[in-house]
This record gives sequence, structure tokens and C-alpha cells, in this order.
Amino acid sequence: MEYRIEKDTMGEVKVPIDAYFGAQTQRSIDNFKIAQDINRMPKEIIRAFAYLKKAAAITNFEAGVLPQEKSDLIGQVCDEILAGKLDDSFPLVVWQTGSGTQSNMNVNEVVAYRGHVIKGGKLTDKEKFLAPNDDVNKSQSSNDTFPTAMHIAAYKMLLEVTIPGIEKLRNTLAEKSAKYMEVVKIGRTHFMDATPLTVGQEFSGYVAQLDHGIRAIKNTLSHLSELALGGTAVGTGINTPPHYSENVAKHIAQLTGLPFITARNKFEALAAHDAIVESHGALKTVAVSLMKIANDIRMLSSGPRAGIGELFIPDNEPGSSIMPGKVNPTQCEALTMIAAQVMGNDVAIGIGGATGHFELNVFKPVMIYNFLHSARLIGEGCVSFNDKCAVGIEPIEANIKKHVDNSLMLVTALNTKIGYYKAAEIAQTAHKNGTTLKEEAVRLGYVTPEEFDQWVIPGNMVGKIS
Amino acid sequence: MEYRIEKDTMGEVKVPIDAYFGAQTQRSIDNFKIAQDINRMPKEIIRAFAYLKKAAAITNFEAGVLPQEKSDLIGQVCDEILAGKLDDSFPLVVWQTGSGTQSNMNVNEVVAYRGHVIKGGKLTDKEKFLAPNDDVNKSQSSNDTFPTAMHIAAYKMLLEVTIPGIEKLRNTLAEKSAKYMEVVKIGRTHFMDATPLTVGQEFSGYVAQLDHGIRAIKNTLSHLSELALGGTAVGTGINTPPHYSENVAKHIAQLTGLPFITARNKFEALAAHDAIVESHGALKTVAVSLMKIANDIRMLSSGPRAGIGELFIPDNEPGSSIMPGKVNPTQCEALTMIAAQVMGNDVAIGIGGATGHFELNVFKPVMIYNFLHSARLIGEGCVSFNDKCAVGIEPIEANIKKHVDNSLMLVTALNTKIGYYKAAEIAQTAHKNGTTLKEEAVRLGYVTPEEFDQWVIPGNMVGKIS
Amino acid sequence: MEYRIEKDTMGEVKVPIDAYFGAQTQRSIDNFKIAQDINRMPKEIIRAFAYLKKAAAITNFEAGVLPQEKSDLIGQVCDEILAGKLDDSFPLVVWQTGSGTQSNMNVNEVVAYRGHVIKGGKLTDKEKFLAPNDDVNKSQSSNDTFPTAMHIAAYKMLLEVTIPGIEKLRNTLAEKSAKYMEVVKIGRTHFMDATPLTVGQEFSGYVAQLDHGIRAIKNTLSHLSELALGGTAVGTGINTPPHYSENVAKHIAQLTGLPFITARNKFEALAAHDAIVESHGALKTVAVSLMKIANDIRMLSSGPRAGIGELFIPDNEPGSSIMPGKVNPTQCEALTMIAAQVMGNDVAIGIGGATGHFELNVFKPVMIYNFLHSARLIGEGCVSFNDKCAVGIEPIEANIKKHVDNSLMLVTALNTKIGYYKAAEIAQTAHKNGTTLKEEAVRLGYVTPEEFDQWVIPGNMVGKIS
Amino acid sequence: MEYRIEKDTMGEVKVPIDAYFGAQTQRSIDNFKIAQDINRMPKEIIRAFAYLKKAAAITNFEAGVLPQEKSDLIGQVCDEILAGKLDDSFPLVVWQTGSGTQSNMNVNEVVAYRGHVIKGGKLTDKEKFLAPNDDVNKSQSSNDTFPTAMHIAAYKMLLEVTIPGIEKLRNTLAEKSAKYMEVVKIGRTHFMDATPLTVGQEFSGYVAQLDHGIRAIKNTLSHLSELALGGTAVGTGINTPPHYSENVAKHIAQLTGLPFITARNKFEALAAHDAIVESHGALKTVAVSLMKIANDIRMLSSGPRAGIGELFIPDNEPGSSIMPGKVNPTQCEALTMIAAQVMGNDVAIGIGGATGHFELNVFKPVMIYNFLHSARLIGEGCVSFNDKCAVGIEPIEANIKKHVDNSLMLVTALNTKIGYYKAAEIAQTAHKNGTTLKEEAVRLGYVTPEEFDQWVIPGNMVGKIS
Repeated sequence: MEYRIEKDTMGEVKVPIDAYFGAQTQRSIDNFKIAQDINRMPKEIIRAFAYLKKAAAITNFEAGVLPQEKSDLIGQVCDEILAGKLDDSFPLVVWQTGSGTQSNMNVNEVVAYRGHVIKGGKLTDKEKFLAPNDDVNKSQSSNDTFPTAMHIAAYKMLLEVTIPGIEKLRNTLAEKSAKYMEVVKIGRTHFMDATPLTVGQEFSGYVAQLDHGIRAIKNTLSHLSELALGGTAVGTGINTPPHYSENVAKHIAQLTGLPFITARNKFEALAAHDAIVESHGALKTVAVSLMKIANDIRMLSSGPRAGIGELFIPDNEPGSSIMPGKVNPTQCEALTMIAAQVMGNDVAIGIGGATGHFELNVFKPVMIYNFLHSARLIGEGCVSFNDKCAVGIEPIEANIKKHVDNSLMLVTALNTKIGYYKAAEIAQTAHKNGTTLKEEAVRLGYVTPEEFDQWVIPGNMVGKIS
Repeated sequence: MEYRIEKDTMGEVKVPIDAYFGAQTQRSIDNFKIAQDINRMPKEIIRAFAYLKKAAAITNFEAGVLPQEKSDLIGQVCDEILAGKLDDSFPLVVWQTGSGTQSNMNVNEVVAYRGHVIKGGKLTDKEKFLAPNDDVNKSQSSNDTFPTAMHIAAYKMLLEVTIPGIEKLRNTLAEKSAKYMEVVKIGRTHFMDATPLTVGQEFSGYVAQLDHGIRAIKNTLSHLSELALGGTAVGTGINTPPHYSENVAKHIAQLTGLPFITARNKFEALAAHDAIVESHGALKTVAVSLMKIANDIRMLSSGPRAGIGELFIPDNEPGSSIMPGKVNPTQCEALTMIAAQVMGNDVAIGIGGATGHFELNVFKPVMIYNFLHSARLIGEGCVSFNDKCAVGIEPIEANIKKHVDNSLMLVTALNTKIGYYKAAEIAQTAHKNGTTLKEEAVRLGYVTPEEFDQWVIPGNMVGKIS
Repeated sequence: MEYRIEKDTMGEVKVPIDAYFGAQTQRSIDNFKIAQDINRMPKEIIRAFAYLKKAAAITNFEAGVLPQEKSDLIGQVCDEILAGKLDDSFPLVVWQTGSGTQSNMNVNEVVAYRGHVIKGGKLTDKEKFLAPNDDVNKSQSSNDTFPTAMHIAAYKMLLEVTIPGIEKLRNTLAEKSAKYMEVVKIGRTHFMDATPLTVGQEFSGYVAQLDHGIRAIKNTLSHLSELALGGTAVGTGINTPPHYSENVAKHIAQLTGLPFITARNKFEALAAHDAIVESHGALKTVAVSLMKIANDIRMLSSGPRAGIGELFIPDNEPGSSIMPGKVNPTQCEALTMIAAQVMGNDVAIGIGGATGHFELNVFKPVMIYNFLHSARLIGEGCVSFNDKCAVGIEPIEANIKKHVDNSLMLVTALNTKIGYYKAAEIAQTAHKNGTTLKEEAVRLGYVTPEEFDQWVIPGNMVGKIS
Repeated sequence: MEYRIEKDTMGEVKVPIDAYFGAQTQRSIDNFKIAQDINRMPKEIIRAFAYLKKAAAITNFEAGVLPQEKSDLIGQVCDEILAGKLDDSFPLVVWQTGSGTQSNMNVNEVVAYRGHVIKGGKLTDKEKFLAPNDDVNKSQSSNDTFPTAMHIAAYKMLLEVTIPGIEKLRNTLAEKSAKYMEVVKIGRTHFMDATPLTVGQEFSGYVAQLDHGIRAIKNTLSHLSELALGGTAVGTGINTPPHYSENVAKHIAQLTGLPFITARNKFEALAAHDAIVESHGALKTVAVSLMKIANDIRMLSSGPRAGIGELFIPDNEPGSSIMPGKVNPTQCEALTMIAAQVMGNDVAIGIGGATGHFELNVFKPVMIYNFLHSARLIGEGCVSFNDKCAVGIEPIEANIKKHVDNSLMLVTALNTKIGYYKAAEIAQTAHKNGTTLKEEAVRLGYVTPEEFDQWVIPGNMVGKIS
């Protein structure tokens, strides 16, 4: 490979001759040879940086500390980054400095050097039109830009991927709930037969879980909407022009179309990432919900002949490389694996969040890496589960009817007529003898056959169906 | 010990002759010999049951399905439970059936048998005035009472212990922040010297963390305010009179003085405890904040002669059994241990929440045990930390001044004057030579002594102090 | 309450007049009002201290730095502690200083003052025969005694409670495996019908899990057998006589009957508790195994009429307060709740272990509290599950036979005869038509009825049964 | 893109015309659109599959169930996979079926079709020389191949990356320990000044931690060495020739050069992945150690002027985009972020391990994904930390001397001379007055100046230096 020489405050570095990045990016590549092929800094962070660098350039221009030409040029490169044209210029990994300084400098360098090229210069020019630190990073520090990029990327992902994905699944489950609201089935508590409910009621519980989950996520958006930018090095805003914080937040809000505001307290915004911890707590809650829902559907569709077999789910692929004709609940499996991942990510984020010191938390990259991973997995996982499984769910009514008809727990309907103790005796005797409730109820002399038929009606045991 | 014979649907059981509980409680004692001396079902759950049993009795009376005398008597025993008079009657442990049925029956039995005694009967009477299932448990199931007790206990603990504890600490930190807002100190990022801020600014970050944490907890109260009661066995409300759910929630709200409502979806309320998962996610966020804050204070008060030594914290006890005169940040240690515990509890709760099946989650006791543990530890831990540490914090101004005066990062003030590169050269040279910034700045010819004195003023580098 | 005045290096403290403890214990009670009724320092730690204080006294006497009379007296009080006679004298909680200094001093004070009383003195005597620091704590520091107590308590619990509990369950499952080795049943993969195996084979997997788990725990004992004692304040062994470390470890080994040795590196033994982290990792592995096993048994015993219904488990208690006659897998529920708790405790321990600084980890109490909790829960949980569930497990052969006979996955036996693709076609057609494999295999012309009967024999599909 | 038509048992699928994979791979691409650009099945798993497919082909040939030509051809393609020539042919992601069936089929298809091409055929040929299921997958199931690949990949990674990485760092720290064994420094407990030790002693603690960690990892290798292959569908070994399990394990051992054996119990080997859980528990223990070590080094090197400043670490890059000349402990930050990640991964793995059902655990991909991630991060993280930080560590002797000389905890040396209480008085008075120990010791009349100088010698307080 051919190289050019770039310089930073520590000296000279050899950089690939046509790379848009410079010395500090190259140092990071050389210094952090850790999982470089699998753990690049998420592209969502790079794009969030593009928004904020452009907003900062505009704000700096408006404040009179950056010439319009430079400001425009910075914005132009940022637009290229947002369009995905410079993806190869951001090779750094998550496992770098904990402030993300090197990714901030990666962006600063790429914006400066690509801008210089746009302007007609050459990468090998000693002097460049834009300086990474003094122009692109003007009125900024890694310490406020990286957390700002974290919030932008997190907020966008939640709004564009996570919540829509959950909502899509929620809506399908709501349709199923409505459609099968009259299908009476046996309830199961402790994994054991219980009193009946309807398929629609059961699914309404899943819908309620996801509704609560979406609300829980939305509750966390207000903290995420607060941007650290303007705090610079330690939160005091050193080296920023007046009203910079408010103005740059306004520009970011405008560019992204999202309601970002400047953080009320910049010291908190640099030194802690409780917003990420809090918001991921909501993602974890949704993961817990999805584990429950996908497990239920996996189990309710079990069989085809030696399982519960109450739900049909679509056959998407051959299920076994050795057992011919086998079909498996693979979407349930992917979704529950995702849930496990999110629950693990939650711990990594919590530890990162807890281990900041003084004016700066230096677990920023690992925190946002896990956050974006979870947010995306939940969103895309819900869509996959929805499209390839949930939309095709149908009750298998023959099995459902058989189960409810055989159930011993229908005896519960007799509690209010003959008391819990006699009802228990009926159920226990029928279980022991392998007989029906009615046979034993009558034989024990507690009810007449007519009373039994009048009182024990599964469809009457499911309450008000709404 | 002397015994009497009690019966349930499975037969006879020997019970201590003067125990208010009956057969099912005794079975649980015999069947679950697990950590019986250290893991009793939390007393907060027993008291929450007292509220709900009383509310159910009133509601049942109003609905015409329970005589007033029985309703009143149930209420009277519940009042005794709430007054702490019957604590010894609830010996069961967390490690029982996952629905908490045995604790529900423990309460049913104690209310029935103690009521019978109040009414003038004897524990050895074969027939008792109140029946555990048919009277005390009327219109109820363990499946809806236990989650109702979970929400009552959790909500009360958050409001009475957790939030007030955090607020107490928050207010003290806010006072310190205001009091020391002008004390300029060195900032530290990456645990390394950085640009200055004030002690008050630093503390304002802690206050912001706790403010956000309190808000995060409060955001979760709406889900916790939903009560499962009225769902009975599987969520359908079988064996309840009309309007029971709404009415019993109203009575609970009245008795507790808290804004409880009936759950919008009873299937969710029995089968999932996402409200507990969500709310504990907020507690975990606060634990993360407390870990950061207590670590900072521990480190800032380190020394007395070979540490950072910028904060004085009270000496509460001799710190060492071997090193005479040693004083340690013990309140920081207790609080950070609490934070670790809460972060672990969060995982136990998540796994419990994720592992429900069909119409019932059967990790109820372990979930609420961990929740109440965390909620109490945070509340009481914050009060202890506040009273025995935070209120006594004072800046050690001599050390603070020495640190800020020596700092090389004051050079940052020159960025906007001479550019980042020259400023870096000054700092690096001073570091290498063990000299001052001013000496090197002048020697390198980048500024005059007058310019240096005019531009590099720590007090001017801390931004607008509010 | 009446008080007496006690003194420590910080001044006077009022102590309950008849308490054996002194000033520093009382300070801790006053300074740490956190969960005092539920989170006492585990009694296993107090007893481990008794072993080590006695061993230290003997070693000090042998080294000529403590008179025999004092050494004997210390040993005498330690024997009382071990006999459980002084339990009320140890009121401190987990949430204290992270070095456990206060619990060490609690023991020092109780040994000194109780010794003084045995010797004929009074608690109110100004001068006492034994001094807490200079005699009882001689050649010791909290920093080496507390981790020594951690290892003694952990090792004893594993050997006396945890491993025997797991082994008891393992042996019962092995008996069941042997007894039902010929009972052919349907296999289930992905929760879906698969090729057959025997009940005994299925249970042999559980046995293998527990065998591996026991081995994993035992692998961690070597690190736990290393004792910190002799490191004193920071690991250098300041203020100890020659050969003290080796000798005191020998005495502890002798007193406990366990193979304790002095830690090879005392700096590690004070500053890190990786031995606890490592060993609890093995406990977590067992928790994971128990979750799997208990879930399987819960699901295999599900029904009685609308579940899988292949295993009978004992009915220990009425299962429902509303559904008469219901029986639930309550021991499975307790055991899986325990598994969730252990998995949470693992995180608390990990965070504690990771957050030590320099020469001392100050998360000692929270680490050992969680460790002992897990170790005990697993041990006692396995015994409970064994005695009240596993020993009574029996296959329900009618259901088992029905499931295996109906299975479509028996078609796998045809793979090697007619190839995977044709076999799949048979299974899919039978599934679609609700017919038998044989019907479709013959109808499709792939095998003759005679071939089918000869090739598809469930009992021949389970491999070599050992 | 151009397509060809491929078929599986469920029908026709369009596949990119020149892709070596077939219908089932394509179905998985279409069905699981989840994080496709960032979460590919780890390449280590694909290569482990290559070993096992080759070994199976050889074993099948030797058993007379596969012609030599086919066996050789399969081996030839496997060699290409191992050489990295077919990486693009494995596009599937982690989030697929939980058995990894689709990745097994991906390998089966690529081996079959690439083999066909090597043999001179065309991808568009209807009949191919090798069949994915009947030839490449012969005597196998996803259910035994995937866990076999998990163990091969995990074992190799531990041996080739993880352990060598830890050992490299361990050896550097051991060198530093030896080199600086005489440099007396102040000890710190509770983050507070304590009695002295030497830099070498402090580092010896780190070495001991890593030694124990390496031992802990090695303890888990025996379980990982057990291979599931031969268990096929449910562990019974259906459709395998005699002695297949033992023979195929022998061939895998030979091909990899690692001591693999056939699993003693195949039911456990399919249904549970406790070996992964157990082994990752050891990785988590190492993560905990690394967090401690990296934190210590970060803190000991803090400053340069307002921190502890006792260690020099190399300057690898400019540390700040705003603060000129700032240098940060970035390798410590990367390593501690890795530790947080591993601790989170541990939870994901535990949940996956705990949630298997019956004959198959279907969290295989998420478990091995997290395992390999951790194993690699630790290995590469240790190398990075070693090469770019640890090797350059040097004590800053001036600061070290200043700290130890000032220390009040040197008073501990007087305990055995004048007793703990008088020693405490000296230290407290010196602290209060800002004086030296000697001044106060003499002034209080407890020692003469000569005694003080004779008794209080830091170098004598560090014990036997080995």
C-alpha cells in the first residue's frame, strides 16, 4: 500500500495515501487491534456525528467564529456522510478510548480532508483548507460531541426502528386478539390446566404487554432528547461562543426533525449516561415481554401430535437436517435469542454507566454499542417475527375444543354453588378415576345432571369479552 | 410442642396448637425447608395482603355476596395485621410456589382463624365462623391477589422509603452545590487533569442524576398503580360479582391513600410482571447513579496525604483494626455495595419476568422479594449516606487550590488565541520539563507574560455559574 | 434500656448494659440503619471468624506473642460462638464498611468482653482482661481476617450444604434413569415432536448436567482453600511473627477439618476476590442446569388433561385457592426461582469483584452475602426438590405410548433406506392428511407395509441403551 | 442479479446464480432480516464446521456408508473453507433458528455444490454429485453438529487467542513485579493511605489474579473437549454406523490437533450447553480481574499534577480534541470496556443456557456468539493492553517517595511497641495538626526520637520480599 505522511500533536504518522482520515485515526487503528473485523463503531454514531458537525458549523458561523465558506464546506461533507458515501472512511472500532475521542477525531479528519479535496486540494497538501481541530471541532470537545452523537443515534433508532417494529407486531397481535375473541380455550396456570378463557383474551395480554413496553420506551425519550453539546471539555462550555448550546441543539433538532434540546445540566451529560441506562431498561422490559410472548407461541404451537397443538404457525423452512418433514418455531427462537442478548446487553450498559469518574464517563462506546444493538435487534426482530410468524397464526380449533372439554378445572364454576371443598372432591375423584366432572359430580350427589349442565358452561366462564 | 389437627382438601395436617395459621401454611413449612431463617416473605407483602383482603371483604359485602358480620370481622383482623400484631403468624418463605398461593392461603387462614377467635371461638373448634377459601378468599384467587399485593407493596415502598430517601440526599447535594458554586477546582476527565470547573458545578451533576432518577421511578408508577384483583384464576374474573374489579380497586385506593386503579388488562396483570421489571429498571438506573456519585466522593476524599484530598467527609468510626487513626469512606462503601446488589437483583427480576408461561407468571415471590429489597436498600442507603456522610462534606480548599494552580490543562484557554497545536506544544513542554505553562508559553514565544495572565484565568474557564 | 459507656480511639459510646459487644459495634449499628431486620451479616461468617480467632490465638501463643491464658480464653469464647451461644451478640448488617472491619471488631469485642466475664470480670469494668485490638486481633487486620472468614464460610457451605444437596438430587435422578431406561418415549426438539428416546436416557442427561456441575464447583475449591490470614493490613504481613501465615492456616485446617492453606499471594487475597467470583460462576452454572431440569419436569408433568402429561409428580399441597383440586409443580417453581436468584447474585458478585481498588477490595460483605445465599439456596433447594418431587416421579406410560405411536418423526428411520427427501414427503403428507406414516409411505409407493413395519420400530431408534 | 432455482423439501427457491449455497440458506436470508450487516455467524463456527464435516466424511467412508470419492471431495471443500476461500458463501446471521440448523445446512449446501463444481459440474445442474443432506450431512444432525462446532470453535479460540493473550500480559506484569520489587510505596486500602508495600508486591497481586484466571479457564476445557457428534437428532445416535461417535471425535482431534473426545452423555450435549456457561464463567472471572488491574493502573497513573501520579504509562495518541497536550489511559479504557462487555455477555449466555427444553437447547447461536466475542475480546484486549501500555509502565519514583514519606499509616509499626490506642492518638494528632508522626510521637511522650527512627522504617514494613 502507498502512504502519505500526516501529523498531529504527537508527530508524524503514515496513512494510506487515499484515505480521507488522518493521523489520529491511523494511530487508533494501530493501537487498538481488537475485533477490528466485527466491532466497528456503529454507523449510526458516524451519521449522528454528521448531523452534529454540520449543526456546529452553522452555529459557529452564525456566532461569527467560523467563516461561511468553511461552514458550508463542513456541511457539504456531512451530507455526504449522511448519504452513506464515505462509510469506508470510518474504520475505528468500539474498543478504543472510552470517551470516543478517536471517533470524534476520525470524523473531524474526514470532514476536513474530504472538504479540502472538494475544495480542489489534494490529500498530500501540507496545508489544508479545513483544520480538524480548529475548524471542524470548533466549539466542541469529544467529551460533548460523543454523548451528543449517542443521544442522536439512540433516539433515531428508537423512533425509526424499535418502536415501529414493536408496533407492527402489537397491531398484528391485536388483530388476532379481536378475530379470535370468541374462541374458548383452556387456561393454563403453573403450566397446568386451569379455567377457560378465549384465544382473543390470551392475545390481549400480549398486546397489553407491548403497549406498556412502548409507553415505557417513550417515557425515556425526554432524557435522551437532552444533548451534551456545548459542555465541551468538562461541562463548563469553555471555548464556546455565547448561546452556543441552545443554538446548536436547535440546529440539530431542525436537521434531524427530532425534538432535541440542550441538556439542562452539562456536567451530568458528560459524566454520566443514565439516559442510556434508563432507556435500555425499557428495552430490557420489552425483551422480557417478547421472551414471554414468543415462548407462549412456541409452546402453544408445539406438536404436531405430542404437544399442545393449539396454534398453527407458518412453516418457513425445513426444520431439520435429519428429521424429514419437521417444522420448527424458528421465529420464536430468533426472538427469544434476541431477548437473551438484550438482557445481557443491559448488564454491560449498567456496568459501563456505573463506572464513570469525576467529569467524564469513559465507557461511552461500549454503552452505545450495546444500546444500538439492542434497539435494532428488538425492532428488526419484531418485524421478522411479525411478518414470518405472527401474521400467519391461526387457532387449531379441534385441539382447542378437545382440551377445554376435557378440563377438570371447569369445576371452579361450582365453587359459588357448592363450595370450594366439595368442588375439589369432584375434581380429585374424576382425576383419580379418569372420568368426567359431570359423572363424579352426580355420583357424589352434589349436583343433579341438569344443574351441572346449567352451571358448568365453558363459554360462561370467560367473563365479559371486550 | 402441642398440636391440633387442621384439614384442607388434601387431608389432615398437624399444626402448632396456638398457631393462627392452618393446614396449607403448615404444608408449605414442611414442604419448603429452604432458607427459612433468612428469607421470609417480606412483611410488606403480608401487609399489602391485609389491605386487599379488607377491601375485598368490603366489596363482597357491598355486592351482596358476603354478610356484613363476616366482612367486618375480616377487616378487623386485617387491621391487626397492619398494626403488626400478627407478624409471627406468617412464617412462610419466598421459596414456595411461584404464584404465592401459599402466602395467600397463609393470610386466608390467619384471617379466618384469628377472626374466629375474636368472635369467641377456639382454634380447636371443628367448624369456624370464617372459612379461609369461601369467605376470606371470596371473589379472589392467589393469581390475582398476589400480584395485587406485589403492586401495593412496591408502590408504597417507592413512595414511603425509596423516593424520600433519594430526595433527602438530592437536597443535601443541592445545598452543597449552591454553597460551593464559586470554589474553582480542577476538572478530571479520563481520571486525568482537565480544565477547571467549580465544586458546585460538579455537585450539580449529581443532583441532575438524582433528579432524573426520581423522574424515571415516577414514570413507572402508572403501571404499578394497576391492580390485578378481579382477574381471579386466569384473568377472566370467574366467580366475581359485577363491577367487582373497579370497586375493589377503589377500596384499596381509599384504604392506602394511593391512586390504585383496576388493571386495564387482567390477562397481562397475571401472566406478566413487566410493571415490576420496568420499575426496577428505574431503580437500577438510580443504583448506577449512586455508584458514580459515591465513587466520586470516595476518590475526591482520598488521602489524607497520598490521595486526591479535595473533599472532607465525616469520620464516623475507627477505620482499621490494625492501622491506628485510619478513617475510611465507609458510607460510600455501603452505598456502592447496595448499588451492586441492586444491579444483581435487576437480573434476577428480569429472568423471573421473562419466564412466565401462558396465563400465569410463577416467579412472583422472587420478583417482589428482589424488588422490595432494592427499593428499601436504595431508600435507607441514601438516608444513611446522607446523614452520616453527605451533610458533612466540605471542600478542602488548600488542596483544591494547589491542584488547579498547577494544572497543565489551563492551556486550553489558549486554543482560541493561538490554536490547538501551539497550545499542545506548550503543555507537552511544561509536562516534560516540570515547569509551568506560563514559563513555556513565553519561552516558546507564543504569548507574552501579560497575555498569559490575561487569558489564562481558571475562574474565567468555568463558564456561567448558575 | 440501660447503658454502659465504652471507648474506642474516637471516644465514648453508649452500649446496652449487658451487650457483649463494645463501642465499634455500637457505632456501626448507629451509622448503618439499613435493612437491619433482614440483612444481618450471615451467621456462617461469624462462625468462620470464631475458627480463625481461635487459630490466631493459638498461633500467637505458639509464637510467644500472646500468653497461654489469654490464648485459651479466646479459644473458649470462640467455642461458645461456634456452639451458637452468642448469636445475639452479632447484630451488624451486610451494609457496613466494605472491608467488614466492623464485623471483625464486633467479634474482637465480643471475644474480649465475654472472655473478661468468663474470667470473672464485669462488663462495666474499665480495664478488661482481654483487649479487642491488641489481644484478640493480634497479628491480624480486618483486611486479612474478613477474606479468610469468607473463604472458610464459603468452603464449608459448599461442602456441607451445596454439594451434598446436588448429589442427593443427582442420585435420585440416576435411579430414575436406570429404572426407566427401557421406557421409549417421543423426543422433543424445538419443543416439537422428534425421534424417540427413552425416559431413562432423558434423565441421564440431567444426571450428566449435575455431574458436570459438581465437578465445576469442585474445580473452584483450590482457590477457595487459600487463606489471606497473615497478610494483615495490605498483604505484607506487617506486625506478624515469623511463619505466622503458614501456622495459622494449619490451625484453621485442623479446627475445621478442611484442607486450607495460606494464600500463595497475599496481595491478591486482600485486593481481589476472584476466588469468590470463580466459584460462584460454578454455582451459576448449576443454577442454569437446575432451571433446565426443573422446567423439563414441570412441562413433562403438565396437564393433567391438556398438557404433555408424561410424568407423574407428587401432589404436595392444594394448588389453587380458587380452582378446586388443582395440583401444581410447586417444587419446580421454587427451584427455578432459586435459579433466577443465583443468576442475579452472580452479577452482584461480579460487580463487587471488579470494583476493588489498589490493596483492598471493599465489596467483601456484599460478595460473601450473595455467595452464601446462592450456595445455601442451591443446596437446600435441591434437597427440597429431591424429597418432595424427584423421588416420587413416575412415567405415565399410557400417555407416553400414545405420543410415541402417533409421532411423524419416526419417519427418520427411513432416511437411510429411501433418502431424506422422500421421507420428508411421507411425513408432510401424513401431517397434512392427519393420517399415519405407514399409510402414506405405502400409498406413495416408497415402501411396502412389510418394509415399514420392519424398519420403523421406535424401540430400535433409541440406540444403545446403557 | 441473476438467479437459478434450487429446491428443498418445501419447494423451489431463487438463489443468486453463482452462489455456492442453496435453497435453505436462501430461505434463511429471506426469513431473518435481522442485523444482517453486523451479526454474521462467527467465521470460527464456519471453520469448525469444516473440520467436523471433513471428519464425518472420513468416518463415514471408513464405516462403509460413503464412497471414497465423495468423502475426499467433501474433505477438499472443507480445506478450502479452512483456508478462508469461501467466506462469502456463509451469509447467515446469528438470529436464525436456535439449533443453528440453517448454518449447518449452509455448510452442507456449500460443500455439496462447491464439490460438484470442483468435480466439473455446474451450479445449475439439476442433479449434483453430492447431496447436502444425504452425503454431506450423513450420520449427522444439526442438533449434534452445531454443538460440536461450538465446542471446537470455543476450545480453539481459548487456546489460540484468549490464553496466549492473558499469558502475554501476565508475563509482562511479572517482569514489572520483579523489576520493581524493591521500590517501596504507600499502600492504599479503602482508597485511603495505608501501610507501605513495594511496587513489585502490588504487581505480584495482578500476576496472581491472572494465574488463577488462566487456571480457571483451563479447568473448563475438559467439558469443552466433549463433542456431541454422533448423538444426531436427539442424542440416541439414530442413523449412525457403529462406533461412529468415537471415531469421528478421533478424526476431529487429529485434524485440529486438540484433545477432543466424544461426549460421555449425548443427551446432555444436545439439550444443555453448560460447558459454554461454565467456561464463560471463567472468562467472566478474568474480566473481573482485568477490570481491577486496568482500574488500578488508570488511577495510579492519574495526574499528571493533580492525581496519584505513581506510574508512568506510554502516551499513544493525543488524548483530547479540545485540551491540548492531554494524554489519557486509553488502553485501560478499552480493557475495562471489554470487561463490562464480557460481564454482560455472561448474562446472555446464562439465560440462553437456562432456557433449553427437553432434548434440545435452542439458544445455541446466541450462546456461542457471545462466547466467542468474549474470548476474542479478552485475548486481543490483553495483547493490546500489553503491547501499548503494560510494557511501558515505569514507576515515577519521586512521587512514590513523597507519598510514602508523608504517610500517617507508618504509625502501624508502633502497634507492637506502644499498643494500638496510643499509636492511633499519634496519627490522629498529626493529621489534625498537619505535622509529622515523629513530631507528635515524641511530643506526646510515647517514644524517643531515636526509637521512632529505629522502629518506623517503611522498608522494614513490607515483609519478606520474594
